[in-house]
Amino acid sequence: MSGSLAVVGLGPGNPDTMTPEAATALALADALYGYGPYLARVPARSGQARYPSDNREEGARAAAALDHAARGGKVAMVSGGDPGVFAMAAAVCEQVEHGAEAWRGLDLVIVPGISAMLAVAARVGAPLGHDFCAISLSDNLKPWPVVEQRLDAAASGGFVMALYNPISRARPWQLGAAFDRLRRHLPGATPIVFGRAVGRPDESVVIATLEAADPAIADMSTLVIVGSALTRVVERPGREPLVYTPRAVKDASA
Amino acid sequence: MSGSLAVVGLGPGNPDTMTPEAATALALADALYGYGPYLARVPARSGQARYPSDNREEGARAAAALDHAARGGKVAMVSGGDPGVFAMAAAVCEQVEHGAEAWRGLDLVIVPGISAMLAVAARVGAPLGHDFCAISLSDNLKPWPVVEQRLDAAASGGFVMALYNPISRARPWQLGAAFDRLRRHLPGATPIVFGRAVGRPDESVVIATLEAADPAIADMSTLVIVGSALTRVVERPGREPLVYTPRAVKDASA
Repeated sequence: MSGSLAVVGLGPGNPDTMTPEAATALALADALYGYGPYLARVPARSGQARYPSDNREEGARAAAALDHAARGGKVAMVSGGDPGVFAMAAAVCEQVEHGAEAWRGLDLVIVPGISAMLAVAARVGAPLGHDFCAISLSDNLKPWPVVEQRLDAAASGGFVMALYNPISRARPWQLGAAFDRLRRHLPGATPIVFGRAVGRPDESVVIATLEAADPAIADMSTLVIVGSALTRVVERPGREPLVYTPRAVKDASA
Repeated sequence: MSGSLAVVGLGPGNPDTMTPEAATALALADALYGYGPYLARVPARSGQARYPSDNREEGARAAAALDHAARGGKVAMVSGGDPGVFAMAAAVCEQVEHGAEAWRGLDLVIVPGISAMLAVAARVGAPLGHDFCAISLSDNLKPWPVVEQRLDAAASGGFVMALYNPISRARPWQLGAAFDRLRRHLPGATPIVFGRAVGRPDESVVIATLEAADPAIADMSTLVIVGSALTRVVERPGREPLVYTPRAVKDASA
């Protein structure tokens, strides 16, 4: 009875962006757990059981996968992007800390993946080319004032921001409120990148400015990057503009 | 004469963590540019020229690769980790903005990779499981007071931190100064992860606390993760501890 659990990052969606390490971890598993649409990206294999679940059920999903592994299963939990960035790895660790004692003895491996912020940044240039942060706009698990405090800290500190979970049917106003908050700190011309489903057939990328950014462009599959005061947009003849943040900062006011 | 430049993320070092997309981009190139040790990770192929350079020459290296592409070459620039995170993508974009006009017309693609912070985080659990930031401690391209201001903003904002370029022969004191600075804001028990060469044969990972963290553990191949006040260390019988940051934040003081 030596079960195991691998928490596997699928990357942004295109199979070409999933690592061989992740592909191997999926191939070795005899049971797959995960949010339904992520599980659907993994080709079916005979003899491999699948346990899809809804997207609000991370804790229960992690517990079920750990329990399955504790009963001797070779289990893989799939995660979009990177499992360590607003995804399943923290939910699994929470269950290991607070759940059955046997779960602490399990062979647990986290297999990293290309997170959405890296995929979106690569598509437009190098907006994360200098110091940056990643903030989830979801207030399901933290109070909105904490989000605001972090937006303030990031903007006044000169960080570029990758905003995860910008909007959903249950959270329609948060991205607009975040833009309003950031307008207190950042110039209207600050570049904003909306990267939707990057790497998938329905990909779309919109480059805007903070003063004109329309939150309605974003949906649940969108990652939003907010530049710093130093972030540049470079126009190119016949091509999409490049968005990047220079590596050098000249003085402490920047 | 339709040249192209692909800026390719090799990931943390183990070939299993490089995406198929990156492998394809390298295979299609007829010339490879990059920092010598990164180029050395790419298997030789006959007919493919190599142009290694030193690690302080990003601007000149980017210009040489763009010039080669503008002369019709199919060029790949290799980058460790992800090219968009303190690596070659921003250096290339800078050259496109400020260099020869023809460079703006080039076919330029950035191919993302697993960045060091994702690889190190995965190795220990999920320390980046909540809002986090990435800060380069190098003061070659920005004044040290900017680094201090960002450490203050990140720590007081409750962000976990991934510290890139923590130390080098020319920059021996910066990581120690950063720890001293962070001790003003964070509890002594705050977990620190030193992840060196993760995914490579000489990998080593050390888990410490802020009060006892020894900067001398780090070298040029090390990525340092500094937890927030909420980051947890979970002991496991017969296994390395898990380090993770819970997804939930209860109130604005956290």
